Amino acid sequence: MLFTCFVAPSLPLPSPSSTLPLPFPSPLPLPAILVYRTLPGTKPFRKLAHLSIHGVALILAIVGVISAFRFHDLSTPPIDNLYSLHSWLGITTVVFFGLQWIAGFVSFWYPRLQTSLRASYLPWHVFWGLTIFVFGVATALMGVLEKLTFLQTGSVISRFSSEAMWANTLGVLLVAFAISVVAAAIC
Amino acid sequence: MLFTCFVAPSLPLPSPSSTLPLPFPSPLPLPAILVYRTLPGTKPFRKLAHLSIHGVALILAIVGVISAFRFHDLSTPPIDNLYSLHSWLGITTVVFFGLQWIAGFVSFWYPRLQTSLRASYLPWHVFWGLTIFVFGVATALMGVLEKLTFLQTGSVISRFSSEAMWANTLGVLLVAFAISVVAAAIC
Ligand code: HEM
Ligand code: HEM
Ligand code: HEM
Ligand code: HEM
Ligand SMILES: O=C1O[C@H]([C@@H](O)CO)C(O)=C1O
Repeated sequence: MLFTCFVAPSLPLPSPSSTLPLPFPSPLPLPAILVYRTLPGTKPFRKLAHLSIHGVALILAIVGVISAFRFHDLSTPPIDNLYSLHSWLGITTVVFFGLQWIAGFVSFWYPRLQTSLRASYLPWHVFWGLTIFVFGVATALMGVLEKLTFLQTGSVISRFSSEAMWANTLGVLLVAFAISVVAAAIC
Repeated sequence: MLFTCFVAPSLPLPSPSSTLPLPFPSPLPLPAILVYRTLPGTKPFRKLAHLSIHGVALILAIVGVISAFRFHDLSTPPIDNLYSLHSWLGITTVVFFGLQWIAGFVSFWYPRLQTSLRASYLPWHVFWGLTIFVFGVATALMGVLEKLTFLQTGSVISRFSSEAMWANTLGVLLVAFAISVVAAAIC
């Protein structure tokens, strides 16, 4: 599971002339969400795993966004920054991801809220955690769409090339994967 | 609320040369979801409202998809069908929307399942209803992105045109709206 999530976002699109900024920003490791349920071990251990994996994911996401900007700036000619809905939603998702991590850390790890406050924050932590996950997935789908649209309108690949069909299939599978993660987390 | 949902999907993008198939396919009226909570009246009345509004939404979505295909076929030269991730996810969403409607109708309206089966299906009805809603929103966001990408790469609008900034802002607001609908439905 975690393998899929860390590795999938680093796969270049199977395009002959990929101009994708890599490693691209990715809050996809979010299914770290499920370590609470899938990992064996004591509660504090699983909590530390949940917190750390999300921490690594946050760093990767920030590094990814920075490298996307650098990729744009260092291209010749430079490519404009932040003109697309993909990039706007991507930035929004990463910002909320960072806020969620800080809120989770402060509430559940250190200094830790008092029991009753912790209990009333928990459902919101879960709600926002899953919401951010879903919009991370939506951002990634939009990234794939935008990349393909560029390649198709630029006639780099044809509309029905196996690259495009393959990427669309991956997109639909990613949706199925996201639905399973959410279902597993709430059931 | 319902006003927003029925009207927003019919708004053309504020583009000088919109080539958008209109009315475009839209399961956005899905916040019909909330009529159970927001409408006054007896339970059977609200159930009928929930069922009918979703029925109308389903018909609109099917008409929309058909008109998108017709728009492609009747263009000169004809535009390819179903090459994009947007269209794949759009079709998938509409199919699941149709299945959800049939399953809801058969289980809760006519012939109606026995009480215990109905009770065990209900949480899945809610889960899939919200899931389909979220992926309808994701499809619409991808539609906006694809449309803008076409206009930008074709130099019809500039990357930072007010049309593009306006559409991106609408996209981010749509996300906020979707999050509110889901929160209202589960809280
Ligand atoms: C959830 C993960 C992702 C996030 C948070 C994200 C975020 C971003 C951001 C912030 C930019 C703007 C960089 C700038 O303005 O200089 C960008 C650009 C881009 N990304 Fe992503 N991205 C993600 C996943 C993907 C994926 C999976 C692909 C394609 C396979 C992709 C393709 C692109 C492309 C083609 C651009 C350049 C065009 C543009 O600025 O919209 N991204 N991304
Ligand atoms: C952006 C980062 C984070 C996201 C997206 C996130 C998301 C989630 C989600 C979705 C759940 C529900 C899991 C389930 O029901 O199986 C959860 C549970 C939890 N998270 Fe996080 N989380 C994040 C960061 C943190 C941090 C930094 C802490 C600090 C310790 C933390 C502590 C917890 C705790 C205590 C639970 C409850 C586990 C239980 O007893 O059921 N989270 N988180
Ligand atoms: C949730 C609502 C939507 C659904 C279910 C949907 C579905 C579809 C489908 C099935 C097609 C393919 C038609 C064909 O292959 O002949 C299509 C095409 C298209 N749609 Fe949408 N759409 C939705 C919303 C939107 C929105 C809001 C926009 C833009 C503002 C948009 C823009 C486009 C464009 C530009 C095309 C032509 C390119 C392509 O086939 O991908 N759509 N849509
Ligand atoms: C595609 C169509 C449909 C979608 C997306 C959908 C979605 C939903 C959602 C999200 C809820 C939870 C609402 C809340 O918690 O406030 C719900 C409740 C419900 N729906 Fe549907 N629904 C659909 C069609 C139908 C149909 C055709 C019926 C037939 C009568 C139906 C009967 C019900 C019932 C009985 C409830 C439970 C209300 C309650 O007592 O809490 N639904 N639906
Ligand atoms: O027909 C119905 O089924 C559900 C519930 O009774 C299932 O337990 C509900 O709210 C109805 O109106």
